[in-house]
Amino acid sequence: MHILILGGGGMLGQKIAIELSKRGAIKEKQISRLHLVDAYNAPKIPEGAGFQITAEIADLTAPGVATALVKDKPDLIFHLAAVVSGEAEQDFEKGYLVNLDGSRNLFEAIRLVGGGYRPRVVFTSSVAVYGGPYPEIIEDDFILQPLTSYGVQKAIGELLLNDYSRRGFLDGVGLRLPSICVRPGAPNKAASGLFSNIIREPLVGLEAILPATKDVKNVFASPRSAVGFALHAATLDTALLGDRRSLMMPGVTASIGEEIEALGRIAGDKIVALIKEVPDENAQRMVKSWDWPGFTSERARSLGFKCEATFDEIIQVHIADELGGRIPGLEK
Amino acid sequence: MHILILGGGGMLGQKIAIELSKRGAIKEKQISRLHLVDAYNAPKIPEGAGFQITAEIADLTAPGVATALVKDKPDLIFHLAAVVSGEAEQDFEKGYLVNLDGSRNLFEAIRLVGGGYRPRVVFTSSVAVYGGPYPEIIEDDFILQPLTSYGVQKAIGELLLNDYSRRGFLDGVGLRLPSICVRPGAPNKAASGLFSNIIREPLVGLEAILPATKDVKNVFASPRSAVGFALHAATLDTALLGDRRSLMMPGVTASIGEEIEALGRIAGDKIVALIKEVPDENAQRMVKSWDWPGFTSERARSLGFKCEATFDEIIQVHIADELGGRIPGLEK
Repeated sequence: MHILILGGGGMLGQKIAIELSKRGAIKEKQISRLHLVDAYNAPKIPEGAGFQITAEIADLTAPGVATALVKDKPDLIFHLAAVVSGEAEQDFEKGYLVNLDGSRNLFEAIRLVGGGYRPRVVFTSSVAVYGGPYPEIIEDDFILQPLTSYGVQKAIGELLLNDYSRRGFLDGVGLRLPSICVRPGAPNKAASGLFSNIIREPLVGLEAILPATKDVKNVFASPRSAVGFALHAATLDTALLGDRRSLMMPGVTASIGEEIEALGRIAGDKIVALIKEVPDENAQRMVKSWDWPGFTSERARSLGFKCEATFDEIIQVHIADELGGRIPGLEK
Repeated sequence: MHILILGGGGMLGQKIAIELSKRGAIKEKQISRLHLVDAYNAPKIPEGAGFQITAEIADLTAPGVATALVKDKPDLIFHLAAVVSGEAEQDFEKGYLVNLDGSRNLFEAIRLVGGGYRPRVVFTSSVAVYGGPYPEIIEDDFILQPLTSYGVQKAIGELLLNDYSRRGFLDGVGLRLPSICVRPGAPNKAASGLFSNIIREPLVGLEAILPATKDVKNVFASPRSAVGFALHAATLDTALLGDRRSLMMPGVTASIGEEIEALGRIAGDKIVALIKEVPDENAQRMVKSWDWPGFTSERARSLGFKCEATFDEIIQVHIADELGGRIPGLEK
């Protein structure tokens, strides 16, 4: 099995690559080759894999790039490449170029390979495809009316994925990812980053800025769960999806206040005290435009997609996967 | 008020142009100029209008065309230009080129005028943005998961209209039109044409082919109602729409069998006998992929959009508006 990861230099792309290296196969299918591509971040090649891994800097929005990337007919493509929410809101043209034209270039390149080529394409959509007003809980057939340009671009990607799948050009699965939390590493331009910052920074003894109010809710899954979603989607029986190829992934709904309470239970008041409230109107407007009431994610759960059950568990996954089981902030 | 109609040579564009010529104003605003543009059908200029009317053949998908069309800053743009459902399904590339790229070219050209230019854009979407499985009745917050390429292209147009409106580049209203029935003139490539053919042709004494089964349902509004929707949207207070700029228009839900019963009540058995059942798999698949259960259209109704109450009334509107109040098929 030949696998291509677009956005392979990003946080999720790297974690999927590492997991694939460890497993060596997806279900019973041995991996023969993994190609990592990213437009901005040079992908690191995981060590010790029993198969060939290559990496490349390439931009899907440049002419001919998508065609070249699918020339060797990868069996499985993870399409994670995107400009994140905050940046797509700040730079209107770049958001549409990367998130809409980039995805379309990829799907078109696949279509034009022809000759029965029909790869599995796992596309990361986002909970940002939803916008209020909301019902009390969001069912799987609730309308997608995003309130950010990023959300609009992801919703368009989903529609294209449906149509290219229905037409038989590719075999798509779209994952509406909850906010990934706790996101490791440096903050990125995703507006949802603040939900991670207030956990990640204090745990290592650093101050974190909270620019939004504590009543704001969001829906979360750990990076470990996100990798699990992607790998589950890679071998899902897509006949079960019908013509609706995208699914709202399961997640844990919590307010910022509830995040902080969970942090207190796990790491204590000294760590919580590192969170400084510094209101910022733009950040507040953006996260408040989401403020999801909660999702049933019934279809995804019934198809075997799994995540954490509580926000405490999300913090514990972070401590286990990123901090070696320790809380460095308590050791200072 | 300066008005631009894209798709101005089509059935709906021509009817809107004629209505505007008669009225001379929209609400209290005098019309100073009307420009009719169409890529395929040379628009006819209605006679006797008290303002300047111009017409042009121009294709939104050609470089620079959209920019040239909005250079004079029309205050109101009706964007009706589209490849219809059957054609978009047959010709994948043409459908995306005209229905997606064409709309995007227009919205981008408007955005790039800048300087506070923010025209009202009335965009004709379609009931084809919906796809099953359906609940018993479709509420306004039901998900848009189209089952045709045309529906996908219209749903994408709606999403772009929302985002460009939210960003302040234009002031959009999207109208999810029911199947327009009875569509006058020669059959076009819209798959929904069959619902009109079986009424229009018999009324003038011609045979009509019915390629689908009588149980197939659809939702209908007359051309007169469609003109009414467009003109109502032209002056609607868009503050009432929030960030969801598109509305499912009211319509009459009827099966093909119920259409034929209404025809029988109005024109008698001799006329009904002109309908010949000739099953066609493609046509059946396409109309069956819709087969809407019925729509509340609650938002649109509450905002003052109006249509016929029964299918009988839809036939009577056709006889009044297109046949001079007569049934020529009965006079042969």
